[in-house]
Amino acid sequence: MIQVYGHARTRSLRVCWALEEIGAEYRFIDVDLPSGAARREPFISLNPGGKVPVLLDGDLVLTESPAIVTYLGDQYAPGKLVPAVGTLLRARYEQWSYFAVTELEQPLWTMAKHRFALPEARRVPAMIDCAVWEFGRTLKTLEKGLQGPYILGDAFSAADILLGHTLLWAQAFKLEMSSPTLLDYLQRLSLRPALARAMAREAAA
Amino acid sequence: MIQVYGHARTRSLRVCWALEEIGAEYRFIDVDLPSGAARREPFISLNPGGKVPVLLDGDLVLTESPAIVTYLGDQYAPGKLVPAVGTLLRARYEQWSYFAVTELEQPLWTMAKHRFALPEARRVPAMIDCAVWEFGRTLKTLEKGLQGPYILGDAFSAADILLGHTLLWAQAFKLEMSSPTLLDYLQRLSLRPALARAMAREAAA
Repeated sequence: MIQVYGHARTRSLRVCWALEEIGAEYRFIDVDLPSGAARREPFISLNPGGKVPVLLDGDLVLTESPAIVTYLGDQYAPGKLVPAVGTLLRARYEQWSYFAVTELEQPLWTMAKHRFALPEARRVPAMIDCAVWEFGRTLKTLEKGLQGPYILGDAFSAADILLGHTLLWAQAFKLEMSSPTLLDYLQRLSLRPALARAMAREAAA
Repeated sequence: MIQVYGHARTRSLRVCWALEEIGAEYRFIDVDLPSGAARREPFISLNPGGKVPVLLDGDLVLTESPAIVTYLGDQYAPGKLVPAVGTLLRARYEQWSYFAVTELEQPLWTMAKHRFALPEARRVPAMIDCAVWEFGRTLKTLEKGLQGPYILGDAFSAADILLGHTLLWAQAFKLEMSSPTLLDYLQRLSLRPALARAMAREAAA
């Protein structure tokens, strides 16, 4: 059975959300991040980077949440969660998935690192203001690209999972999001039953 | 014909490198970044994010360098530059491509932003030390993952383009890289004739 190593309020929610959208069976294994379990054996052998999520599926051990959701779509829901290779939609899927994690997410991750995730001596609190400004600029690019109910137009895809999870993260960080287009988009994603099931699954672990 | 908007010493080199590996014909259009041309019309209509590279291929306008090299592989060199969908290698390809741009590249981009790329008032010079430390930690993860001449093992792929370009960037920033495994890997990639042709093409524009 598919196994997901993760922890509540981390990027593992993206993987559980994708699995719930597909309707796949999986086992969720909590990695006790506050205790440092991700940087010790046995977990560190699964991911030398010391981060969740990690997916186990047969012989495959896979890290990096956008790689995992793309794999799950290609393998278990071809053309549903992820557009088929060779289509223009697939290229746009790749574009927005990379945008989600390199542009939209980076200011949030920077804020998290300099608030609590880095060792205390490495934190640079002056970064927070800059990250807030960068995030606002990236939101404008996303708003211009959002020309349908979902980022690829009419069909929901795993790129919406990556973007939606990141926008939920911004909301938890109380970052300003005043664009009606983006607020509608986030509302539409927030109401998906698969997301609620994924959050419940992680919270219960 | 395929058109690439880019500029020397930016991520557009990844796209030209991929095109040279494939042997595709393309037109390289220089975007005069120092003059701010990427944030003005006509370029800003191609990419509201105001960044290079942008690929034009028929009706497709594509941004985000890893999305572009993946598209080029799937479209013009299936199974050569990018492993076929449905294989374990494809999943590993996705993993290392995302690792390249979210883990390995981010400290370098942070350094570049706080040295010269952000508006002067937004820069936080204290970030540089932290980024150097983060980069060193990420190199260790890459070294553990590198178990063949290339990141996927025996076969060169576009993931090597993303990782190799980023390591070249680190070298230009004079960051410490003492691992023989990584130095051998970078040397192997540096000697690819397609890279030399791509660099010459951008420099001549």
